Amino acid sequence: MSLEFLKEYEIIINENIKFNLDKIRNLDKSQSSIIDGMEYALLSGGKRIRPALCILGSLIGGLEKSKVLNFASGIEFIHTYSLVHDDLPGMDNDSLRRGKPTCHLKYSVGEAILIGDSLLTHGILLLLDSIDGVRLENQIKATRLMLEAIGLLGMIGGQSADLKQEKSCDCGLKELEYIHKHKTGKLLEGALLSGALLANSSENILNDLLGYGKSFGLAFQITDDILDLTSSVEELGKPIGSDLKNEKLTYLKIFGAKKAKEMAFLEVKECKNHISKYGVYGNYLSELADYLLERRK
Amino acid sequence: MSLEFLKEYEIIINENIKFNLDKIRNLDKSQSSIIDGMEYALLSGGKRIRPALCILGSLIGGLEKSKVLNFASGIEFIHTYSLVHDDLPGMDNDSLRRGKPTCHLKYSVGEAILIGDSLLTHGILLLLDSIDGVRLENQIKATRLMLEAIGLLGMIGGQSADLKQEKSCDCGLKELEYIHKHKTGKLLEGALLSGALLANSSENILNDLLGYGKSFGLAFQITDDILDLTSSVEELGKPIGSDLKNEKLTYLKIFGAKKAKEMAFLEVKECKNHISKYGVYGNYLSELADYLLERRK
Repeated sequence: MSLEFLKEYEIIINENIKFNLDKIRNLDKSQSSIIDGMEYALLSGGKRIRPALCILGSLIGGLEKSKVLNFASGIEFIHTYSLVHDDLPGMDNDSLRRGKPTCHLKYSVGEAILIGDSLLTHGILLLLDSIDGVRLENQIKATRLMLEAIGLLGMIGGQSADLKQEKSCDCGLKELEYIHKHKTGKLLEGALLSGALLANSSENILNDLLGYGKSFGLAFQITDDILDLTSSVEELGKPIGSDLKNEKLTYLKIFGAKKAKEMAFLEVKECKNHISKYGVYGNYLSELADYLLERRK
Repeated sequence: MSLEFLKEYEIIINENIKFNLDKIRNLDKSQSSIIDGMEYALLSGGKRIRPALCILGSLIGGLEKSKVLNFASGIEFIHTYSLVHDDLPGMDNDSLRRGKPTCHLKYSVGEAILIGDSLLTHGILLLLDSIDGVRLENQIKATRLMLEAIGLLGMIGGQSADLKQEKSCDCGLKELEYIHKHKTGKLLEGALLSGALLANSSENILNDLLGYGKSFGLAFQITDDILDLTSSVEELGKPIGSDLKNEKLTYLKIFGAKKAKEMAFLEVKECKNHISKYGVYGNYLSELADYLLERRK
C-alpha cells in the first residue's frame, strides 16, 4: 500500500488552502489575527482525507481534479471549523490538537469562536466558487448535500448527541452509532458524494459511493476509538486515553479491542465490495480504506 | 408613518420560520434540544428588518415576495446565529437578549455554540432552497453576496475588531466606523441587495439600493448607540448603559447626543435620496429609514 495518490493530493490541497487564505488576507489586511487563526488550525497537519474523498468521487464520475480543488478545500475548511468549535471549553475543552495547543489556547475563546465561524462561512463560499464546465444545478446539489451533512441532521446532530452523552453517561450502542454516524460519518460520506455530484455521476455510481461512504465512516470511527488507547501522544498529537477519562462510550468499551478490530476489518472489506469495479480510482479508495486499519494517527 | 407593511412582513416571516423549523424537527425527532434552542433564539422577538429589506429589494426588482420568503428567513437565521455567538461568555458575555435569558444561560455554553452553528448552517441552506422562476445564476450570486457580507470581510471582521477594541480600548472614530460598517452594516446592505439580485435587477437599481443600504446601516448603528443610553430595560430587552459600562466606543461618546442625533437624521435623509423614484416600495424603504429615528428598541 503506497498511498502515493494521497500524498500528491495532500500537497495540492495544502497549496490551494494557502492560496485561498492569501486571497482573503490581501483583501483586508486589518483582519490578520482571525486569518492567522484559520491558517493555524488549517495547516497544523492532517492527511486531507475528506478532500481526497471529494477528488476521488469527482474522478470516478469523470471530472478532472483541477476542477474540484476549491470545493475540496472548502470541505477541509468546514471540517476544521468543526474541530475548532469541538475543542472549545463549553464543548470538549481539549488542550491539544495535532500536537499543538488548541485554537482557544493559542488565541482566546472569543477569537476561536470567530475563527470557527469564519472557517465555516469561507468554506461554504469555496463550495460555491465558480467551476468552469460544471452545471450550476449540480454545484447547488453538491453544496446542499454538504450543508445537510454538516447540519442538525448530520454533524451538528452528532456533536449535540455527544455533548448530551457526556452529561448523562446513560447511553448504549444505539446512541454510540447515532453519534458516530452523524458526527463523523456524514461529512466523510458527503465529501465523496459531493465530488460525484459535481461530476454529474449516474445513480449507480452515487449508490456505490454511498455504500462505500457508510462503511468507511464506521471503520474510521472504530479505528479512531482504538487509536485513542493504543497510539502515543507523539503519534496522535493529543492526549491518549481521553475517551476513557471522559467516560465516553466507545466501540472498545462495548466490544473490547479484539472484536472492535474485527468489526473495522469487516467494514473495510464491505467498503471494497462497492468500488472494486472503478479501476484505478476504485483502487485508490480501496487503499484509503485499508489505510484506516494501519494508521497510527 | 404606519409601517403596516413591516407588521405584515413580520407575520409572514414568522410563519415561514416556524414552518422551516418544523420541517427539520420532523425529520429527526431526537434532536429536539438544539431545534428548541434555535426556535427560542429565533422567536423571542425582533422586527425582522433584514428579511423586510430582502423582500423590498426583491419587490423593487420585480420579483413577488412569495418567491423570496425562504431566502429572507435564511437571512434571519443567520442574523440570529450572530446574536447567539456574540452573547457567549468568550465574546460579549451578555445575560439578556430581547428581555429573555441569552441562549447559553437558557441552555448551556456548549449547546449555544451548536445552536449558533446550526442557525448559520440551516440559514445558508434556506438561501439555497430552490426558487421557482429565479435563475440559478442569480441565486448563487445572491448567496455569495450574503456569505461575503457575513464573512471575515464583513460581519465576522466587525465582530473581531469589536473584540479587540474591548481588549485594548485604544481606538478612535476610524475603528468605530470599521466595526459598525462591518458588524452591522454589511448584513443590512446584503439583505437588501440579495433580494434585488434574486430579482435580476439592473445595475442602476443595485447602485441605488447600495447607496440606501450604506446610509441605512450607519443610521441604524448611530440610533442603536443612542438607544443604549436613552431607552429602558423593559423597552430594549437588555441592560441599559452596557456600552458605557464596557467602555465601548460609541457615536455618543465621540460626538455627544445632539450631534449623534443630527448625524442619524442626515443619514436617513441620504437613504431617501437613493430610493425616492421607486414608488410604493421606495416609500416603504423610506418609512423604514424614518423608523430608525423613532424606535425605542
